[in-house]
Amino acid sequence: MSIDGLPCRCLLSMSDVHNFIQSCMIAVGTKPNHAKDLADVLVDGDNKGHLSHGLNRLDMYVNDIKSGICAKEGEPVISKSTVATTLVDGKNLLGPVVGNFCMKLAISKAKDVGIGWVVAHGSNHFGVASYYSMQALNHKFIGMSYTNTSPLVVATRAKECTLGTNPISVAAPAKDKNNFVLDMATSAVALGKVELQHRRGEKMPLGWGSNAEGKASNDPAEILNGGGLLPIGGLETTGGYKGYGLAMMVEVFCGILSGSHYSKHIRAWKSQTGQIADLGQCFVAIDPGCFASGFEERMADLLNIHRNLEPSVPGQAVLTAGDPEREHMAKCSKYGGIPYPINVINFMVSLQQYQFTFL
Amino acid sequence: MSIDGLPCRCLLSMSDVHNFIQSCMIAVGTKPNHAKDLADVLVDGDNKGHLSHGLNRLDMYVNDIKSGICAKEGEPVISKSTVATTLVDGKNLLGPVVGNFCMKLAISKAKDVGIGWVVAHGSNHFGVASYYSMQALNHKFIGMSYTNTSPLVVATRAKECTLGTNPISVAAPAKDKNNFVLDMATSAVALGKVELQHRRGEKMPLGWGSNAEGKASNDPAEILNGGGLLPIGGLETTGGYKGYGLAMMVEVFCGILSGSHYSKHIRAWKSQTGQIADLGQCFVAIDPGCFASGFEERMADLLNIHRNLEPSVPGQAVLTAGDPEREHMAKCSKYGGIPYPINVINFMVSLQQYQFTFL
Repeated sequence: MSIDGLPCRCLLSMSDVHNFIQSCMIAVGTKPNHAKDLADVLVDGDNKGHLSHGLNRLDMYVNDIKSGICAKEGEPVISKSTVATTLVDGKNLLGPVVGNFCMKLAISKAKDVGIGWVVAHGSNHFGVASYYSMQALNHKFIGMSYTNTSPLVVATRAKECTLGTNPISVAAPAKDKNNFVLDMATSAVALGKVELQHRRGEKMPLGWGSNAEGKASNDPAEILNGGGLLPIGGLETTGGYKGYGLAMMVEVFCGILSGSHYSKHIRAWKSQTGQIADLGQCFVAIDPGCFASGFEERMADLLNIHRNLEPSVPGQAVLTAGDPEREHMAKCSKYGGIPYPINVINFMVSLQQYQFTFL
Repeated sequence: MSIDGLPCRCLLSMSDVHNFIQSCMIAVGTKPNHAKDLADVLVDGDNKGHLSHGLNRLDMYVNDIKSGICAKEGEPVISKSTVATTLVDGKNLLGPVVGNFCMKLAISKAKDVGIGWVVAHGSNHFGVASYYSMQALNHKFIGMSYTNTSPLVVATRAKECTLGTNPISVAAPAKDKNNFVLDMATSAVALGKVELQHRRGEKMPLGWGSNAEGKASNDPAEILNGGGLLPIGGLETTGGYKGYGLAMMVEVFCGILSGSHYSKHIRAWKSQTGQIADLGQCFVAIDPGCFASGFEERMADLLNIHRNLEPSVPGQAVLTAGDPEREHMAKCSKYGGIPYPINVINFMVSLQQYQFTFL
């Protein structure tokens, strides 16, 4: 099947994918409301076109629950509070359960005093970061979300991976609902992009990663075998130390503020699944109504200034943060489902042992 | 005179430089306390080694006051407040006057409720961003400062400069006082670095800037004549869209929240000095005491993990944000002054018309 020129894509309705995820998670003992929280965020990732943060990662969540490394029972708990801040103990529950709990708190505090800054320890992978920041948009608030992650990134001048891809997401409401939605890893690229080049047998641009000796490399195999991703900016000469600084900033907001694991103390990606993750996460909501009136009009103007710029390559429109995801969501809506590559479907079939009602 | 291998450097004591700046500003009609605020931040920039944000920029401030484009009289005013947020009207005063006023408010709110988020419109260039974020360190708080600036940066896929170098500064206290101090433009490099390569007649790495057609260029002349700086990440293939998104994020916190000028509505750098700047700025303080205890110990550990990493090039130590500035300050302290290149001294002499008591 081919959809809009994408080869080997299979269309699955969002509700089917949602049911499948929920069923798999419940089958291994997840509480139904927690399974729903996870299904919501994974479907959101796929709907936005970030297939690396959706269904494709279900096995990790299934295995974490099945092995008992991630908690099945309980709810997140507030450890410390002011009218504007909260420290949350995520009780080692699924990331989206912790994330939703924290974002709801942040929004409630922003309603009261203009800002809510909520930090959690004891969390797990929470899927696509913009899922949380965008919850603030429903209240016409600015939303932010940050998480630390397993070390995959090499600091400027170093050899060893000591930082996660530590994403930053900031969402801000615009008048015409074409909101600003930044959602970016602080690494130059995602690990998935390097893996893709590796599977294709192709080289990568210099600046994506370094080899085991800390030397910039354009060979994906070197990055994947003992090397690591470079921070945004790539090499030191092109400003990679700025991306390194930003990854550290995210760690300050997450691991250092929350008292969770941080930096190289976090379990290795995929190879140390027998250890709890204890991730740190940060969720913020800000009410623009507490500042100058007309926020949404100015926001729309700023975005439209950029969307209407003359492109340097004719036909390649200037985009703003959130536009590619909105485009993908519109396509899914037009198709009536999410177009998945066949390997994701095969992967779902292999997971069928965990589910009851789907396929 | 040569200092530590730096050719043609002249050593000036910080108090002499401070007096000179203050005298020049007072000579054109600046209130003494405002002149002191400006002198404090410019000397701080030079002391940290950011000569582009110190004495070297005094002419801009002198001219803005002399021409009346920047206000001489008055103080910043609070327009709107909650226990955790404030909107400030900077009344078109000097940037450091506005910045100090806002940062003091942010710290006071963080003392009350754990966080203070303060935004100002009607401000002017405020010097080195970390001067404000670091004020929070005196209270063992995290500090942040952001400002929008005149358009010098080209959005990904565009040709025209629509974004400033919009810096981000985040300072966080560590146990041993070797604090984390991030202070970075969201452009790949500062304009000054391109100008320097141009004066030297040398090419630059690809990824620093683009020409008037929006094509990446390694020729400084092209960047300076109708082109512009690229956001962190450089080209689209190496993640430049992330830097573009970050520059927009800073604009959200500054121009869009505050109702100041923003993006290409801000006066052009150096060529439109007849228009008021009306910059937007954002100042934040966060009390780590409202989150998990032991913040400063974890912060020191995170920094030391990185400082102690084996470097990829022997002898080129892995640094953390704030280390190069601390090193420069230690040198100045050892010398008993700031080593300036001779052209900055000549420039001071040319400004002597404005001052009474120095040289």
